[in-house]
Amino acid sequence: HQSKLPNVGTTIFSVMSSLATKHNAINLSQGFPNFKSDQKLIDLVSKAMNSGYNQYAPMLGNLELRKAIAKKYELLHAIAYHPENEIAVTAGATQAIFTIISTFINQHDEVIIFKPAYDSYEPNVELNGGKVVAIQLYAALNFKVNWQEVKEKINSRTKMIIINSPHNPTGSVFSKNDMLQLENLTRNTNIIVLSDEVYEHMIYDGESHQSACLFPDLKSRTFVVGSFCKTFHNTGWRIGYCCAPKELIQEFIKVHQFNVFCIHHPTQKGIADYMQEPKHYLELSDFYQKKRNLFLHLIKDSRFKFTPSTGTYFQVLDYSEITQEYDVDFAKLLTMEYGVASIPLSVFNSDNLDNKVLRFCFAKTDDTLKQAAEILSKI
Amino acid sequence: HQSKLPNVGTTIFSVMSSLATKHNAINLSQGFPNFKSDQKLIDLVSKAMNSGYNQYAPMLGNLELRKAIAKKYELLHAIAYHPENEIAVTAGATQAIFTIISTFINQHDEVIIFKPAYDSYEPNVELNGGKVVAIQLYAALNFKVNWQEVKEKINSRTKMIIINSPHNPTGSVFSKNDMLQLENLTRNTNIIVLSDEVYEHMIYDGESHQSACLFPDLKSRTFVVGSFCKTFHNTGWRIGYCCAPKELIQEFIKVHQFNVFCIHHPTQKGIADYMQEPKHYLELSDFYQKKRNLFLHLIKDSRFKFTPSTGTYFQVLDYSEITQEYDVDFAKLLTMEYGVASIPLSVFNSDNLDNKVLRFCFAKTDDTLKQAAEILSKI
Ligand SMILES: CSCCC(=O)C(=O)O
Ligand SMILES: CSCCC(=O)C(=O)O
Repeated sequence: HQSKLPNVGTTIFSVMSSLATKHNAINLSQGFPNFKSDQKLIDLVSKAMNSGYNQYAPMLGNLELRKAIAKKYELLHAIAYHPENEIAVTAGATQAIFTIISTFINQHDEVIIFKPAYDSYEPNVELNGGKVVAIQLYAALNFKVNWQEVKEKINSRTKMIIINSPHNPTGSVFSKNDMLQLENLTRNTNIIVLSDEVYEHMIYDGESHQSACLFPDLKSRTFVVGSFCKTFHNTGWRIGYCCAPKELIQEFIKVHQFNVFCIHHPTQKGIADYMQEPKHYLELSDFYQKKRNLFLHLIKDSRFKFTPSTGTYFQVLDYSEITQEYDVDFAKLLTMEYGVASIPLSVFNSDNLDNKVLRFCFAKTDDTLKQAAEILSKI
Repeated sequence: HQSKLPNVGTTIFSVMSSLATKHNAINLSQGFPNFKSDQKLIDLVSKAMNSGYNQYAPMLGNLELRKAIAKKYELLHAIAYHPENEIAVTAGATQAIFTIISTFINQHDEVIIFKPAYDSYEPNVELNGGKVVAIQLYAALNFKVNWQEVKEKINSRTKMIIINSPHNPTGSVFSKNDMLQLENLTRNTNIIVLSDEVYEHMIYDGESHQSACLFPDLKSRTFVVGSFCKTFHNTGWRIGYCCAPKELIQEFIKVHQFNVFCIHHPTQKGIADYMQEPKHYLELSDFYQKKRNLFLHLIKDSRFKFTPSTGTYFQVLDYSEITQEYDVDFAKLLTMEYGVASIPLSVFNSDNLDNKVLRFCFAKTDDTLKQAAEILSKI
């Protein structure tokens, strides 16, 4: 019974988390917080269940939640997305991305992605018979995009470009100039842009998040994807969303309705209520910048080298002063022998290019970060 | 921006539910209960959130839930599915079905379905470039399958057969003989069987549910799909599952991990706890048979004709004595003028074949059923 993904294995996140559990290691691999989420939010979801939000939600999502999302874009970016037909609630950003790709990618369509890339993009494209056109970014160049290279890769078969800023796994962000370049390169084309912005609320050192919705021409062909799992510290709740012009949402929903139909209704209602206080997402950058600073301070005398992450809750560390081992092997060794789990970057690269960098998740209690830093400083 | 489903519209369930809301009609169209779910179950999900089940679950699902599912198959059918690798928890049966089809259906693969068919099967196949081979069943023949016809439709391109018993929308069930015929027709083939058994716990008049898992040779190539949304009266919770031999689950998970990654974790834990008392699913047939009996008793003197539903929470009614109108038009008229919403069967048929039958959902309070029956009796 051959499937359409014969060569795909288990996602690296599950592999490393399992290894961490098995060896009782501090798990800084898969991106999820190890602290309690806000009790207030939990209570709001319980309340939603107790007030009867237990049957099907509308396919596009609970209308109050769609309005709360629209309000967020209004507040943050002075951008209008219409709750009636430009916003869809999804089972995490993951399902939004999967469904967008399944809706539009046909056999032989080309999709441009930047590597290292989140590990779902490529198999999603492959599943639909599309062809991934990868542009490799390099740690030594601080993962900057060469837009001339992008220009050369665009052709009549290019159906989609996937961007991701703040960027997982590297923690780099696109500048305003990057976004303008992208807008210009795709102007007057039918290329759909999938802008994975799940870390939009985690941005540091005075940088600002350049949402694709801020660039009018770009916005007209873009799906902006967001995640409440990341923003509200509940990765197991599987709730995210996408925003796009209504012509795009209208096609998206055709597939979405037959994939999941709708999303966990009480969670939608609980989050809609919770978002009435914008501070719940506005304070996130401060919260995580402190954690990043703590972690980096504690490992500043270690043999790991780094450029501070400017977004996401991930920090990449260069271990080339310690060893020349292959990053997958070193990540496993670090988990099994030293007790700290991380994610090797080569698995997200073209031809598994190994830059000798590992990704560490700092969405952890200060205590956990201290314990991990203590170990890393001794290596 | 053309999608891969240019001709697909909005699912009939949303269309009729919206129409019902707009005209303040009693909504017996989309299949969901209008009564409160068990407070005990709601409390267990709240408890799971409060005890920290808020981060990613394993991709295959919370292990306690998988064990509870395995225990159910042991108890009901004395059949062993291994919780470690033969069970996957999904975002409703809908997402299980979508993902199974996406995993295995390639361009030009043929998929045999029986019509009337649940409305997601066909677009799912189409999305993957497959070809639907439809076998039409007829109300006048009590929706019985002619297995000789099935035999003639099987060929080397047949990749999958989708069955659904108890059957939505007709309320008919497959007999043991039907299942043996299917087992024989697919013996020594690589045809994957998708057995949609979401109404497994709603079966009436002493009939028994012939799960595909009961037929050993059939089981070896079958995905059995179930739904906690239907069984536990919370259609908005988006939680179901599939069981299959480990070689099939292993391929399924490759796509599942990149579609939704995992399912709402606290709901999984809450349902796992709730299932420790098997009566919560064992008593369901009795519960719904009473509702079916009440509804049919109350309309026995109406001009609608019927054969009592033997499974599901749907009853089809033949209105040919009342009018010869097209069923979609009559369903709309019934909603807008009389205030009772139902689902016209022609939308699930080949060439929209119109048998003059409508589907009514009886998962409603006795009061609602009485009000609806009173109206239907006057038409
Ligand atoms: C869906 S598991 C992956 C979690 C995540 O976003 C990450 O670790 O990068
Ligand atoms: C996902 S909406 C459809 C609900 C249902 O199963 C039905 O009404 O048949």
